[in-house]
Amino acid sequence: MTRKAVVLLSGGLDSTTTLAIAKEAGFSPYCLSFSYGQRHTAELTCAARVAEKEGAVEHVIAPIDLRLFGGSALTADIPVPKTRSLDEMGEGIPATYVPARNTIFLSFALAWAEVISATDIFIGVNALDYSGYPDCRPEFIDAYQRMANLATKAGVEGTETRIHTPLIAMTKAQIIERGTALGVDYSMTISCYDPIDPDLACGECDACTLRLKGFAQAGLPDPAQYAAPPRQAAV
Amino acid sequence: MTRKAVVLLSGGLDSTTTLAIAKEAGFSPYCLSFSYGQRHTAELTCAARVAEKEGAVEHVIAPIDLRLFGGSALTADIPVPKTRSLDEMGEGIPATYVPARNTIFLSFALAWAEVISATDIFIGVNALDYSGYPDCRPEFIDAYQRMANLATKAGVEGTETRIHTPLIAMTKAQIIERGTALGVDYSMTISCYDPIDPDLACGECDACTLRLKGFAQAGLPDPAQYAAPPRQAAV
Repeated sequence: MTRKAVVLLSGGLDSTTTLAIAKEAGFSPYCLSFSYGQRHTAELTCAARVAEKEGAVEHVIAPIDLRLFGGSALTADIPVPKTRSLDEMGEGIPATYVPARNTIFLSFALAWAEVISATDIFIGVNALDYSGYPDCRPEFIDAYQRMANLATKAGVEGTETRIHTPLIAMTKAQIIERGTALGVDYSMTISCYDPIDPDLACGECDACTLRLKGFAQAGLPDPAQYAAPPRQAAV
Repeated sequence: MTRKAVVLLSGGLDSTTTLAIAKEAGFSPYCLSFSYGQRHTAELTCAARVAEKEGAVEHVIAPIDLRLFGGSALTADIPVPKTRSLDEMGEGIPATYVPARNTIFLSFALAWAEVISATDIFIGVNALDYSGYPDCRPEFIDAYQRMANLATKAGVEGTETRIHTPLIAMTKAQIIERGTALGVDYSMTISCYDPIDPDLACGECDACTLRLKGFAQAGLPDPAQYAAPPRQAAV
């Protein structure tokens, strides 16, 4: 019997690779995305086509509204930082940080997992080539998993829930190499914080900069289309 | 300067008492309720009137839809258990358990707290007179608090978030006595899982049974109106 897993899917490079890894590991993927009041819904379009292409058993887009609270360049009227160097990105937590976002996303994943009797949750967080988000670190994930196993009926009854973070220690180049080896079509994905549409990334935000660096280091062509020409300085 | 606190408010007896305790402790309360696809919205009517009466700085009702996942008598087409004795209630986790509900609620509270620079969150969970919910136990709250302090920018920057559970070790009678001493008007609250309207509880679900027992043990009149006459057996 195939085991079920809930896979958090944003439609970006990382979560799409995570989905491919979950499938490779033999899990039947139940994909979960969020319409959370983000600046653009391009990522939801990408998530839907990735889920279909990768054969998700089910794809749920949960509507939650984090604009209620604001506090982030992704959920409020705060500009997305552009054309920052890697050094600048290394300086603290950026304006694109959404308070408690992964905590909220994982909590919905935990709820769905319990309802469908899945004991595995996949999330594509990355602690190396990351943008300084606290909720992408291994110590956060470990503490989350410990909490999750005390939170649910399944946990009380002795079924352990496991949070899988297959990308957590990989560089962006390694993620792209792994996904490419698994046949991921990265033209379906978008990583941009401020895209023009699902098929046109800005090319200047931190996420675009990190993605472009990753493809360059992997020596692979990035099939994404960019509005601004890739900057050599970022590579 | 008064400190801000996010108070989870369902409009029931426990969360209303918790709000009164937070105010007594000197906090400015930011009340958070959820329209989560529950069977009835009577509790949201009660939450709104309690927030107003108690002088909440702000009251946010966050729309999230846990019917997406179902799995509970409160969010799916599963009957609410009625006329159960306290012994029956003690036998395991009931059908009214909503998978990961408090985990989700606390995650939104954490997000809001970070945005408004509040370091305190109040939740009216109770581990004594409870209905067998795993996410009402002290070990869950401790693990949640530990996770929360690793999840946020505030936590990374050294600000500790505290989850307050003033009712956790109190009996229902003690909760009612404390709230009454603080001037809580319990006629504004509803505790019922299956109410007829905001001012008429069923009188037969576990929540009504526990509330009636609490008032009887405290020797105080319950100002709530009940559709079914209180059962002596439950007291």
